[in-house]
Amino acid sequence: MTHKIAILGASGYTGAELIRLIAQHPNLEITALSGERKAGMEMAEVFPHLRHMSLPRLCRIDEIDFSQIDLCFCALPHKTSQEVIAALPGDLKIVDLSADFRLRDPADYEMWYGNKHAALAQQEEAVYGLTEFYREEIRGARLVAGTGCNAATGQFALRPLISAGVIDLDEIILDLKCAVSGAGRSLKENLLHAELSEGYNPYAIGSTHRHLGEFDQEFSKLAGRPVKVQFTPHLIPANRGILATVYVKGDAQAIHDTLAAAYADEPFIQMLPFGEAPSTHHVRGSNYCHIGVAADRLPGRAIVFAALDNLTKGSSGQALQNANLMLGENEEEGLTMAPLFP
Amino acid sequence: MTHKIAILGASGYTGAELIRLIAQHPNLEITALSGERKAGMEMAEVFPHLRHMSLPRLCRIDEIDFSQIDLCFCALPHKTSQEVIAALPGDLKIVDLSADFRLRDPADYEMWYGNKHAALAQQEEAVYGLTEFYREEIRGARLVAGTGCNAATGQFALRPLISAGVIDLDEIILDLKCAVSGAGRSLKENLLHAELSEGYNPYAIGSTHRHLGEFDQEFSKLAGRPVKVQFTPHLIPANRGILATVYVKGDAQAIHDTLAAAYADEPFIQMLPFGEAPSTHHVRGSNYCHIGVAADRLPGRAIVFAALDNLTKGSSGQALQNANLMLGENEEEGLTMAPLFP
Amino acid sequence: MTHKIAILGASGYTGAELIRLIAQHPNLEITALSGERKAGMEMAEVFPHLRHMSLPRLCRIDEIDFSQIDLCFCALPHKTSQEVIAALPGDLKIVDLSADFRLRDPADYEMWYGNKHAALAQQEEAVYGLTEFYREEIRGARLVAGTGCNAATGQFALRPLISAGVIDLDEIILDLKCAVSGAGRSLKENLLHAELSEGYNPYAIGSTHRHLGEFDQEFSKLAGRPVKVQFTPHLIPANRGILATVYVKGDAQAIHDTLAAAYADEPFIQMLPFGEAPSTHHVRGSNYCHIGVAADRLPGRAIVFAALDNLTKGSSGQALQNANLMLGENEEEGLTMAPLFP
Amino acid sequence: MTHKIAILGASGYTGAELIRLIAQHPNLEITALSGERKAGMEMAEVFPHLRHMSLPRLCRIDEIDFSQIDLCFCALPHKTSQEVIAALPGDLKIVDLSADFRLRDPADYEMWYGNKHAALAQQEEAVYGLTEFYREEIRGARLVAGTGCNAATGQFALRPLISAGVIDLDEIILDLKCAVSGAGRSLKENLLHAELSEGYNPYAIGSTHRHLGEFDQEFSKLAGRPVKVQFTPHLIPANRGILATVYVKGDAQAIHDTLAAAYADEPFIQMLPFGEAPSTHHVRGSNYCHIGVAADRLPGRAIVFAALDNLTKGSSGQALQNANLMLGENEEEGLTMAPLFP
Repeated sequence: MTHKIAILGASGYTGAELIRLIAQHPNLEITALSGERKAGMEMAEVFPHLRHMSLPRLCRIDEIDFSQIDLCFCALPHKTSQEVIAALPGDLKIVDLSADFRLRDPADYEMWYGNKHAALAQQEEAVYGLTEFYREEIRGARLVAGTGCNAATGQFALRPLISAGVIDLDEIILDLKCAVSGAGRSLKENLLHAELSEGYNPYAIGSTHRHLGEFDQEFSKLAGRPVKVQFTPHLIPANRGILATVYVKGDAQAIHDTLAAAYADEPFIQMLPFGEAPSTHHVRGSNYCHIGVAADRLPGRAIVFAALDNLTKGSSGQALQNANLMLGENEEEGLTMAPLFP
Repeated sequence: MTHKIAILGASGYTGAELIRLIAQHPNLEITALSGERKAGMEMAEVFPHLRHMSLPRLCRIDEIDFSQIDLCFCALPHKTSQEVIAALPGDLKIVDLSADFRLRDPADYEMWYGNKHAALAQQEEAVYGLTEFYREEIRGARLVAGTGCNAATGQFALRPLISAGVIDLDEIILDLKCAVSGAGRSLKENLLHAELSEGYNPYAIGSTHRHLGEFDQEFSKLAGRPVKVQFTPHLIPANRGILATVYVKGDAQAIHDTLAAAYADEPFIQMLPFGEAPSTHHVRGSNYCHIGVAADRLPGRAIVFAALDNLTKGSSGQALQNANLMLGENEEEGLTMAPLFP
Repeated sequence: MTHKIAILGASGYTGAELIRLIAQHPNLEITALSGERKAGMEMAEVFPHLRHMSLPRLCRIDEIDFSQIDLCFCALPHKTSQEVIAALPGDLKIVDLSADFRLRDPADYEMWYGNKHAALAQQEEAVYGLTEFYREEIRGARLVAGTGCNAATGQFALRPLISAGVIDLDEIILDLKCAVSGAGRSLKENLLHAELSEGYNPYAIGSTHRHLGEFDQEFSKLAGRPVKVQFTPHLIPANRGILATVYVKGDAQAIHDTLAAAYADEPFIQMLPFGEAPSTHHVRGSNYCHIGVAADRLPGRAIVFAALDNLTKGSSGQALQNANLMLGENEEEGLTMAPLFP
Repeated sequence: MTHKIAILGASGYTGAELIRLIAQHPNLEITALSGERKAGMEMAEVFPHLRHMSLPRLCRIDEIDFSQIDLCFCALPHKTSQEVIAALPGDLKIVDLSADFRLRDPADYEMWYGNKHAALAQQEEAVYGLTEFYREEIRGARLVAGTGCNAATGQFALRPLISAGVIDLDEIILDLKCAVSGAGRSLKENLLHAELSEGYNPYAIGSTHRHLGEFDQEFSKLAGRPVKVQFTPHLIPANRGILATVYVKGDAQAIHDTLAAAYADEPFIQMLPFGEAPSTHHVRGSNYCHIGVAADRLPGRAIVFAALDNLTKGSSGQALQNANLMLGENEEEGLTMAPLFP
């Protein structure tokens, strides 16, 4: 059975990544692609790498007949997304890739994003989209909120450890490195090749990055008490990939055992042997997440590493994984391609 | 029906690329992987990006029971390849990725590669592996010689033009740019990141590159008289991709029409609209080749551009495309993934 | 004796490069820096790499007292530059880095740049700034027009050959590769890291690039008859550097001899031994230009390679070299730093 | 007065960087360059970017007449360096760039480097080369041991804080990112462009990197009691630059004040305004180190960032700074060039 798919915001990187992935899916058919500013254009003009595919032209959202759509991916900017989704049919299955429906408490949303939420009804029904931990809720959900790419990476490293109580909850430091496509296709000076290439710098320093809202919400929920981590993201001079280096206090072997047990049956989470660390180059273009654990020379301290592709497992791949669940498809369908190396 | 596959030289980039592609193929099963120096190792140690796959350990070639193999890919270095293939069963289907069986005339081989050919019997039966132009021969072949990655790119730009007689055969200049993975995983100073990144240089200058042997052979055969092109390759500070900029004399529109007609039914060759040029970024990781044509301001001159991924369409993708034909499979199977962008 | 210097347009890459170079000059003192949109800002905010220097704040052009300035560099966009320069004091020494005063014939300017020239008086007195070939005129000039970076590279490869008559003037093909900083600090999608890195593409195809205006003017002047070259620029995924690969017809050894003789006493032009080719990595950040010549396998054909740093020898370094001449300083002052490698 | 200089190990990156810097020094003259395996070659063959310079040919060490040398830089590999230096004249001024003389206790050396020290007499007289903190000792030293590039970066961030007692000495985490030239010009698979570019990974995980020997020695000496930090280096896909992200417990404002006071008169250490972070791109190719401090959202926690160029301030620039002191030259001579950006 073929499911008809719409992608809103198909002129951005996560939109293009969805198309790349869906092209490998036997049971999904792309029926509508929106891009307000580029409406009327062929996808081959907007993304020449999709030239070989037969795709609908970009259109405006109001041109789409949603009664013909089985599931809609929203790859729109924050804030725009909630306005658009509030106006979509109330029974349309939606996977939202923006930040708009990730935080359960509207006050948290307002604190981190600076504006009042404009789709509170939808926000209330939204399910947090970290597949491996919300699988059953996602299966029955109408609206799934894709996680932040940084937030996904940190959570893969930490959730089982917080649940199992094997680390000190007040001493978690997340030093994270993210490639440039995480910032999207926006025209900003610091995203220019000449500024970024051959350089390296932190940003959102002092634990001010918005993805902390997700960490706070999820880690505190797991622990049953407030958990606040330190989080410093850095910009890697590369196009894809996130590496989280997480400093924790606890027994390294117990930490590795806990993660290995938690992910033993997860197809997309690969545990490395104890003492080994992953590389972003080894997950690029794929839906896999590699996790490693090492003991520090200081007793009682460990480092957990998690690597994934921000556009795939961190965003569009996760979105497709969730859509598979919502549509009753095999969760792995369209997502098993190996990473591109080199 | 499942075909059992062996890959000899699986510890190099073209070997890893074959595994990546075959993983998407429903009817091929990797049964043996050789790597002499790394025999006994798991592929996850040699190529951590393949960690999620269930693959045989690397072994020595002499450990493989070829009676159980339906088709063997040889991704070995030049010269080694001919020695190995001469010793393999005479009825084993083989796709060779090295340079050893590309040149029909042993004297040409010796001139370009510097040594006497050691497998003349096999060389005689080998079919040149440029799929789009040798499809029928490949279908019936036992041994197919994969083309050079630069040679493939240049031929896609030029073959239909030479056949159609729409360009001056004595005035062809191939200015070619190739990414670093074309040189393989060998430890050479000029392939170090610190030497290559932020730099750009030509090599094999003066039309001395070995792939000229293929150009001379194929273009002269097409024209029915000797054709010798100028060919200058350059090293791009990037991992994958070849762009050929071909300067020709002829009518640009006729050139575009000729190419468009020749490739109208080819699934992997994409013609761009007249006056547009391709980018290597738009074919990366895929089996597609993008071709563009522009008229120069000087009357009677045109530029033809061809872009492909040296590891995919230029090597392992082409090899799988040929294997599909040899095995009676759909030619496109395992090869339709979209390029990775960004 | 200290010369007081103003730089107009100091918030762009060529402005910053001028500051970097002038910092090594014992007799120049930066007195004023303009940047209309960033007026009032400290340079450390605009270019943090200049943080250690004691520099004037950015101001508006109309805030500068030009009576206190000995020489003014204009690093403004095309078209803006001519309007600004028309309004500056008529006796102020100026080195302009824009395209506005490069073409001697106002009709040529209008053809290539699309607008009528707005400072014809100044254009008439301007001297073309390719130092090695206009040294005496520059010494006495009030207004010098810096060459295009591509135009400089191609001319270094070709001028002595055209003058000496050792190549066929109707068969010159310039295949040029330029790094991304040549496009400046402008916010364009194709200059984003995610678009450019790991990619490679031609642009301005069909000999439509504006620097052809300079080639036509200068080569025709040298030859005493119209000379029109083919010129295809490509974008290198790197920050700095231009490589010109020039296909010519003539005797390779005579070509090398001619270039070696022409540049024997030039401090910034380095001839490579016959048969060797340069790399942009070996001139990066310096004012040096490396030139190589190789014979093609086809008799009577040669390839000339020239490499330089587009921001230094191709723009700001050339500008300082010219300023040195105009101020009676040693031509090499501030310009002898070695390239940055790796 | 001109000082005659020898550089041993001039065919590596730190050797080439020394030449680049010395070229800007008015009072140093390079008299001898050694390179055992490349003895007899011109530097233009080994490092074409130095082609414009007039330099001695590479020779073997035993060909150098050290009685004519005022100061010798040793840019040799670890272990080789101590053997060579043990055999040099006992009154020759030496700046060693290797790890051989950094650790005061031979047992520490053996623990971190795995072999017994072979030049104990020289080791005893060696002075640790972190200029800003050993200035007076260096002025009078015969043999100065250049610091590790990572070790220098971490110490710039931390030394004043440990001295002032404003941070918790048992809770220091150094998450460090280093570009690839830090690993030298050695032929290793993980340093290939195809392996490193577009990837990102940690190495020497679990606080096992040899530069910890320096941190332990220096921080414990400053504190008057053992101090052991956690230290995780990562490889940046870039050629130059180190960024240290240091997680500490203490008052962020007091930390910034302490660093600002400590470095107020240091020409090469630039403090950023409170709350700002540096980028490696803004120090590239220069001898400057940029330091920033931010308060974390968690009270009592701060992050200190330090960025420098591993080949310049982290190695060869530091070495020249020390040589200036040893020779009675102005400490900044030859080292004031601005960073190369972009």
